[in-house]
Formats: sequence, C-alpha cells, structure tokens
Amino acid sequence: MNEPAAKSGARSLLGDLRLEARAAPESGIVEVVNYGRLREGLIPLWAGEGDLPTPAFIAEAATRSLAAGETFYTWQRGIPPLREALARYHGYLYGRPFSPEEFFVTGSGMQAIQIALAMTVGTGDELVMPTPIWPNAAAAAGVLGARAIEAPMSLGHGGWTLDLDRIAKAVGPRTRAVFVVSPSNPTGWAATLDDLRAILALARRIGLWIIADETYARFWYGPGDRAPSFLDVMDDADRVLFVNTFSKNWAMTGWRIGWLKAHPSLGQTIENLIQYATSGVAQFMQRAAVAALERGESFVAHQIARARAGRDVVCGALAATGRCRFAVPQGAFYLLFAVEGAADTRRLAMRLIDEAGVGLAPGTAFGGGAEGYLRLCFARNAGELSTAAQRLTRALSDRR
Amino acid sequence: MNEPAAKSGARSLLGDLRLEARAAPESGIVEVVNYGRLREGLIPLWAGEGDLPTPAFIAEAATRSLAAGETFYTWQRGIPPLREALARYHGYLYGRPFSPEEFFVTGSGMQAIQIALAMTVGTGDELVMPTPIWPNAAAAAGVLGARAIEAPMSLGHGGWTLDLDRIAKAVGPRTRAVFVVSPSNPTGWAATLDDLRAILALARRIGLWIIADETYARFWYGPGDRAPSFLDVMDDADRVLFVNTFSKNWAMTGWRIGWLKAHPSLGQTIENLIQYATSGVAQFMQRAAVAALERGESFVAHQIARARAGRDVVCGALAATGRCRFAVPQGAFYLLFAVEGAADTRRLAMRLIDEAGVGLAPGTAFGGGAEGYLRLCFARNAGELSTAAQRLTRALSDRR
Repeated sequence: MNEPAAKSGARSLLGDLRLEARAAPESGIVEVVNYGRLREGLIPLWAGEGDLPTPAFIAEAATRSLAAGETFYTWQRGIPPLREALARYHGYLYGRPFSPEEFFVTGSGMQAIQIALAMTVGTGDELVMPTPIWPNAAAAAGVLGARAIEAPMSLGHGGWTLDLDRIAKAVGPRTRAVFVVSPSNPTGWAATLDDLRAILALARRIGLWIIADETYARFWYGPGDRAPSFLDVMDDADRVLFVNTFSKNWAMTGWRIGWLKAHPSLGQTIENLIQYATSGVAQFMQRAAVAALERGESFVAHQIARARAGRDVVCGALAATGRCRFAVPQGAFYLLFAVEGAADTRRLAMRLIDEAGVGLAPGTAFGGGAEGYLRLCFARNAGELSTAAQRLTRALSDRR
Repeated sequence: MNEPAAKSGARSLLGDLRLEARAAPESGIVEVVNYGRLREGLIPLWAGEGDLPTPAFIAEAATRSLAAGETFYTWQRGIPPLREALARYHGYLYGRPFSPEEFFVTGSGMQAIQIALAMTVGTGDELVMPTPIWPNAAAAAGVLGARAIEAPMSLGHGGWTLDLDRIAKAVGPRTRAVFVVSPSNPTGWAATLDDLRAILALARRIGLWIIADETYARFWYGPGDRAPSFLDVMDDADRVLFVNTFSKNWAMTGWRIGWLKAHPSLGQTIENLIQYATSGVAQFMQRAAVAALERGESFVAHQIARARAGRDVVCGALAATGRCRFAVPQGAFYLLFAVEGAADTRRLAMRLIDEAGVGLAPGTAFGGGAEGYLRLCFARNAGELSTAAQRLTRALSDRR
C-alpha cells in the first residue's frame, strides 16, 4: 500500500469509531503536562499530586507480598483484610461502626467513579454536577453515553458558594444522579452540613443517586479533623455511592488503587462491574493499602500540615501581586485563581511553563465557571512553593 | 430505622440501579470459585491461571522501581520503555518491525477489552462472537448497552470448527464488531490462516471492527512458534484492535496489566479512554512488564512445555474413562470436555468440588455450545494434574 492510501485509511479508522469514544475529550491537564513534562527545572504544580514518594513502610508491604508469591487472581471485591481495614478506618474517622461488606476495592478512585457511573447513568441519561469540577467524571459519563449538566458555583466575597437553585434547575426528566466533590478539586470549597442536607433532600425528593467524591476529606483547614461528609447526614438506605482513593492521603497517586463504599445489597452488582472492568486489584497492592490504613496516620498528619503551610505560602504571594483573585481554600490542596486581564488560561498555562518554569492546570479543564482561572497544587515543600510563587509573581507582572 | 424498613430500602436501592448494571451477570467461574475457594486439598483447575508464581526477576524489577520512588502519575499510554519493549517483542514474534506508537498499556487484558469495546459498540449495537467463549467480553459489552450475538461453533470428528456462515448470519444492521479469541479459551481451537482471512474479508466487506484476543498465541501445540494471527493476513489500515495481557505468558495473572495494539491514529482516543477508566498503570508494574518481555523467553518456553505435558496427562486420563468427549486442544491451556449423561454441568462442577476435590469451570459460563461441558485448566505441574485426573476418573465413574 502506498503512503497516501494508508493515511486515508488511518483517517477513516478514527472516523469509524463509536461516536462517544471519539468525543471523549483530551484531558486539559494531561495536555499541558505533555507540553511541559520534560522541561528542565520546571516546578510541576499542574497535577493532583504532591512531591513525596509513597512512604517506605507502604511500599515494603507490597514488596513482601510480591516476594511471598502473592501474584495470583484474588477476590474481586478486595481481599478481606483490606475491606476490614477500610471499615476500621471509617469507624475511626466517622465515629460509628462500619461493615467490611460496605467496601469494594477498585483499581483507582477513577475506576470507583467509572463503576458508580455505570451503576447509575447510561445513554441519554443526565448527571448534574456543581462546577468548577475535576473533569474526569463528566468525561467518563460521556463514554457511557450520558451527559453531565453543569450547575456553576460562583466566587463572591464569602468564597465559592453552592447555588442549590441552580442544581435544582439543572435537574431534568433524564437526570439520574448528582456528582459532588467536597472538599472540591479545584476550588478548595467544602460543603457545609447544611449544603449536604439540602443536596440530600433534593436527591430524596426526586429519586436521584448521589455520587460523593470525598477524596480530600482529610485535607481540611476548618474546625475538626475532617470535612463534613454525607455520612454525617444520611441514612443507611439513602442512594449514596462514595468514591475514594489511596492516591492523596498516602502519596500513592501512581499506584491506581481506590475504593467504593456502598450499601452491601449492591455488592454483587459492584463485584460484577469490577470483574468486567479490570477483574480486581493486585493482591500486593492491597497489602500496601492495608499498611497505609493501619500505620499511615502520622504520615497523613504530616502531609496535611505541609499542605496547610503550602497553602499559606502561595495565597500570601499571589495576594501580594494585587492581580490575582481567589478564595482561600477550605480544603483539598489546590488554589484556583484568576489573573486580572488574562482570559485565555490555556495559553497562559503554556506561557507560564515557558517563561516561569511553573506548570499549572488551565481552568478550561474544569468546566463552567473556571475558564478564567488557573489551578495550582500546593501539596509540596514550602521552599519549592516559594520559588514557584516568586517566579509566577515575576511572570505575571509582565502584562502580556 | 427498624430492620424491615432498612431491608425494604436495600431492595429498592438495587432496583434503582441502571438496568445494564443490574443485568451484568455474575461470572459463572467466580461463582464456583467462591463455592470452593477455601476447601482443604482442593486442586483448583477452574481459573485461567497456572500454579507458578511470577518469576522473581519480574517481581524484583517492580521492587526496585518501588524502592526508587517511582510512585507518581505516569504516561497514560504507558511508559516509553514498555511501549518500545512491546514493539521489539512483536517484531521478534511476527518477523517484521512494529512502532512503539502502536502499543497502549492497560490495567489488565480485561481493560484492553473494555476499551476496545468502548471504541466500537454502544447502546443498541451488536457484537458477534464465535462461541464457546470466555464470558467477560460479552458481559462488558452488556455494561455498555450493547449485545453479544453468538455464532456457535461445533465439535465434530475433526475437532471444533468455525462456521463462517453462522457468523455471517449473526451479522445484522446494528453489528459493529466481531470478537475472536484464538487460540480459544475455552475450546483450545485455533483459527487457521484461512479462517482469519475469511473473517477479515467479511469484516472488510461489511465495515466491521475485529477485536482480536490473541492472549494464548504462544501456547500453541501445532507447527511453528506461535498460532496464526490476524497480523499474518491484515493490512496496516484494517479495522483490527488487538487485546492482550501479561497474565498468562509470564504468570502475572494477579498483576492486572495488559496491552492494546491499534493503529497509531487511534492513539489519542485510546489515551482518553485510559484516562477515564483507571488513568494509567503503576510505573513499577510497567518496569516488571519490561523485564518480562526482555528476559522472560526461557520462562515462557518452560511454561509452554509444562502446559503441553499437562495437556497430554489430562487428555490421556479422560479419554481412558470412555465417558468424556473432547477435541485435543491445539492451543491455549484448557480442556473443554463433556461427560456422557451429565447435562447440568454447573451442578456437576459443584459435585466435583465436594467429592473429587477438583475445581472445574462449568460450561454454562462460556456461552452457547458449551452448556454440556466442563473446562479444565492444565497449566500446572504434571504430578498434581495426574492426581486431579485420577480423582476425576473415580468421581465420574459414579453415574449420578
């Protein structure tokens, strides 16, 4: 075959794909990461991960399991010791008993979302989500043929606020679920107990599922040990699916292990969906996750303290520019900020890679309400964050 | 809430799930595994895995990567060294050059299938598959709202034969793809070059995708080093997606790592679908996969020789019963056999767990044409297989 023929063949290959697959958007974050990944000296604050590798005691639990030959197929819902450890961890964090039967180990928090979506929405269905929001859930819903309807939040003097009327207005006859990330990636907003009660009341009234992403519950800068949770306000039989991950608390972003918490009556369906997605999670990974839950509290505390210090460094520096607009994050480890006069933040993110050597995520990656913003991850050491803030301050003083 | 109320709530939770999620079938294999998993002394020949743990040189590559702190997010398509190693491996096996851009690392062969399906079929679409077949692809298509249409093969004196007319007849206006597993799990049949050419011609004529599962290409008992492949008969621009796994060749079933081979023009779509499924594969797993490809040939040869010996042991013993009907497998590492007078093989599989201490998979798990059969995995040491065969022979002589 000559080359033009092959090329036209290739074009038609893409055109022959299922529409929903072709329509899956390139991650707006991955796009800038790919643009800047190999730049020398770049400070990467674009992705949702810190600068610490996984603690040795966690990695060593995996290593021991591997050396012991735990390399065979295992329980589709997760190994019993991990499901028990998850139940104990939740008991400690939420102050009441949980059953191992409520927990399902998944191959990342992303997979927990994929499965929760497959449980609730399909072709033609809709999913309401307050935005700005981490983009992957909407995209994963799109792969299933469903549509995410945005209910934009707004940034006022009191910070970001949830507009329940906008959520209610976004609900239509095909709406099956509400997807809530609190504390929020990317805004740092966290729902109050009243917010959660209001969303739950709406969901109960209309018969919607709630998919609750409380990944950042521990990264919380308000009173108490953790952010408010749907677990504080719901009944056992409410339609709430929790998606979560080991990635953030225990610096395990690269591992791809998470969990889904759901009513045990949904267990067989969840097992089946795991079976037909990746058929379980490596046992040696699950041993590491047990170690994280059982021996990880001081590391988690260290990470939270670091993120709080990082937050203060970047908020202070960017406030001092007089050109940045943001709410001080209440939770999670991101600062979402707008720069006066900069509307095209995708281009600005590229420029900051080139000129400041700092990698940020453009707001365009985070849905309605975030277009004019940049997201900065502050889960890093304060020295590097100071350098990044200085570089950003300098580059932003150039009013191009 | 009192208990009856909670129970009725739980029932309604399940009823409120999306229909396609509720309809996902429990794996017929997992069901018997769960029934017999903890039986003392049971010889487990039910799952598609051997008895050898992952070789140490592979596990140690993961351990070194972990110790070096490779625990961060990584390339969504796979780390470049692994994509290069996959290209070299294919070059060696198929005798022509491949580009790293054709390979995409996935979180299991199952996930490669999930993604290939999401690329080709959606709600209301159909997928044709010769059966008996490993059940997961049909179930994963169901989760997407698509339907698998069976084109049953038949077992005659010459072994299992592909009936191209039945495939052609199964194709309807909503058919988008043909799913072919060769060498076959569970029959041990392998497509000839003529079979592959005929399927390809049909797919070209109608404009169908082929999803080619050639997981067992190396476990091949015919002439040459490997089974015939679509790679032997296709052009570069044909609509063929290959799904594969590290599970079988390198005894890595528990790891959950595989790959998809596709035209590079589909790369961005595949990257997006990986992003919205599990967002990549752990880098330390990928280092292990590189070691498997680069240093695993003698282990693969050892496994193939063992499987060939195992095949001879079980085929000999079951033939000697005079009550078993099967074709000697040409490839893969399963024997699919019928027992005279035993129609309910799900019940028979349970009985053989209880009475023979041998775990087999019931044919009901493998679609049309396999209902009256049992599947036995012979990727084990010959001694244990002899014991299993003796126990089976004894139990099957009891004509209940």
